[in-house]
Amino acid sequence: MSKELVFGHQKPDTDTIAAAMAFSYYQNQLGYETEAVALGEVNDETKFALNKFGMQAPRVVETVANEVDAVMLVDHNEPAQSVADLDQVTVTHLIDHHRLNGFNTAQPLWATLRPYGCVSTIITELFQDAHIDIPQNLAGMMLSAIISDTLLLKSPTTTDHDGEAVKHLAKVAGVDYEEYGLQMLKAGTNLAAKSDEAIVDGDAKTFELADSKVRIGQVNTVDLDDVFSRQEGIEAAMQALMDENGYDTFVLIVTNILNSDSDLLALGANLDKVEAAFDKKLNDQKRMNLPGVVSRKKQVVPPLTKAFEG
Amino acid sequence: MSKELVFGHQKPDTDTIAAAMAFSYYQNQLGYETEAVALGEVNDETKFALNKFGMQAPRVVETVANEVDAVMLVDHNEPAQSVADLDQVTVTHLIDHHRLNGFNTAQPLWATLRPYGCVSTIITELFQDAHIDIPQNLAGMMLSAIISDTLLLKSPTTTDHDGEAVKHLAKVAGVDYEEYGLQMLKAGTNLAAKSDEAIVDGDAKTFELADSKVRIGQVNTVDLDDVFSRQEGIEAAMQALMDENGYDTFVLIVTNILNSDSDLLALGANLDKVEAAFDKKLNDQKRMNLPGVVSRKKQVVPPLTKAFEG
Repeated sequence: MSKELVFGHQKPDTDTIAAAMAFSYYQNQLGYETEAVALGEVNDETKFALNKFGMQAPRVVETVANEVDAVMLVDHNEPAQSVADLDQVTVTHLIDHHRLNGFNTAQPLWATLRPYGCVSTIITELFQDAHIDIPQNLAGMMLSAIISDTLLLKSPTTTDHDGEAVKHLAKVAGVDYEEYGLQMLKAGTNLAAKSDEAIVDGDAKTFELADSKVRIGQVNTVDLDDVFSRQEGIEAAMQALMDENGYDTFVLIVTNILNSDSDLLALGANLDKVEAAFDKKLNDQKRMNLPGVVSRKKQVVPPLTKAFEG
Repeated sequence: MSKELVFGHQKPDTDTIAAAMAFSYYQNQLGYETEAVALGEVNDETKFALNKFGMQAPRVVETVANEVDAVMLVDHNEPAQSVADLDQVTVTHLIDHHRLNGFNTAQPLWATLRPYGCVSTIITELFQDAHIDIPQNLAGMMLSAIISDTLLLKSPTTTDHDGEAVKHLAKVAGVDYEEYGLQMLKAGTNLAAKSDEAIVDGDAKTFELADSKVRIGQVNTVDLDDVFSRQEGIEAAMQALMDENGYDTFVLIVTNILNSDSDLLALGANLDKVEAAFDKKLNDQKRMNLPGVVSRKKQVVPPLTKAFEG
C-alpha cells in the first residue's frame, strides 16, 4: 500500500487538526503509511494546544492528487468542505460526526460515523477497541479537541461518550482538564489581540426591521470582562460604524461560551424596542444580561423582529 | 425512544436477512426497541438456513413510515435499493459493506462501514467489541450469511475478517462450516426444482456477433453434475429455443461457484469460432472446461466477440 494523506475540513479548528493527527497515528500503528495534513493554517486555540503539548501543526496542502492516490477524511464528508481535488483521489477511510451530505464513493470504504460531540471521541474509542495506547502528547491534543467542540462538555451536542473520553484522555495527558480547558478556550477567543472594531463588527449582520436598519454583532468569550473592560472603546467603535453606515440601532451580543449566558449592549435609536423584545430594561451601562441566550439566529433576531415589526 | 425497524435491501439475500436479525438483536441488547423486517420474501438458500437453525423469516413490509419514525439500515445505502418511503423516516443507524451512493441524512447518524465480504462479519465484530454474546441460532444465521456472500471464503471479496468471523460463528453455532456451507449453497442453487428451459434460458442474453445471433446463458451450481446429469434435456431445451427464436448459436456457461470453474456447452453453427475464442476444442459431449472463468461479461463475451468479428 502506498502512502495516504489524512485531513479534516477547510478553515481547520482544533478537532479537525487533532483528529487528523490522531487517526494518522492510529493507522500507522496498524501498518498503514499515512501523514496528517491540514487544509489551512491552524487557529489561535489550536496553536495554544499544540504549544502546550509540544507538537507541530500539520503541513498545509492546497491539493492532494499531486502527492497520493488515496486519502482518509476526518471531521467532514461534504465535498465542498474538503480539498479542491478530492474527486481525483480515492477516499479509503472516513471518521465523522456530521450528517452525510453529497459524499459518494466508487468503492466500499472503511467508515465510522457516530453522533458524538467530537470526532476525537470516536477515535479515542477506536484506540480502545484496538488496544492501542495513545501517546501522552497526542492524548493532550485529542482532549483539547473535545473541550473545544463541547465547550468543556457543556454544549447541547455533548454525549456520555465525550465525557468518558475526556476523563480518559486527561489522565493519559496528565492535565486537569477543567483548568487547562478554560485556559485553552480563553486562548481561542483571544480578544486581547483584536481591535475594538473587529470585536463589534467581525461577525455582524444588518437586519431591516420595520423602517430601521439594525446591526447585530456577536462575539464569543470565556469572560465577559474581557470585552466590557474595554466598553468605552467598544462603544466608540459601534458609534463610528453607525455614523458611517447609517445604522439606526447597534446591538452587540457578548456570549460567555462557558456558561451559555450573554450580555447585550445596545446603542442608538429604538432602545425601547430592544427592551420590549426581551422584556427587560437596559441598565445604566446600556446592557442587559440574557441567561441561556447563545444563538443570534434563534434567540435574538426573532424577538427583535417581533418588537420592531409587531 | 420509540420502536425502530431494521432491514436490508429489496430482493433479500441471506446476508441482508441475517444482518437485519443480528443488528436488531444487538441493538435490543443495548436497550433499543427494534424489530427486524424484510423488503421481500426470503430465497431458497435463506429458507434452508432459517430451517437449519430453527428461526422464523422476518415479517415482510412494503412501507415503514406507517409504523415508525426511525429505521436502521443494513447491507445497503442506496435509496433505490431500499424501502419506497425511506424519505419519510430518519435513518439512525447504518451497517454496510457497499460503496456510498446517494445516501444523505438530515442529522448525524451512527454508521459502521467496512470493506469486508459480508455485513454479518461487521456485526460479529460489533458484538465482540461490546462484549455481547451471540445466541447459538443467530450465530448460525450470521455464519450462513458469510458463507453465502463469500462462497465459503473463496470469492475475491473475502477478507481475513470474514475468515475469523466464520471460525468464531461456527464454534458458537456448533456446526462444521465447510460441510454445512456446501449443503446451504447447494440448497440455494436448487437446480432440481428448475425446468430444463429455466436452467438454460433463465439468465440468457442475445448478442449479435458479426452476422450471427448468439445466445449466451449462464447458470450457477455447486456441482456441475447437477446440470450435466440432465444434458439430454438441457440440449433439447437449447435446440427448441434456437428453432423458435432463430439463434444461430447457443452457448451455456455452467459455473461451479465453489471453485470458480465453468464448463461451456455449445450447440448450433459457428462451433469453430467458439473453439477459436477460447483456443480449446469442444469434446465429444460438445463441452469444454474453462478454469477460472466466472464472468460472462468480462470473460466470455469479449473472446467470443473477437473470434466472431475479428
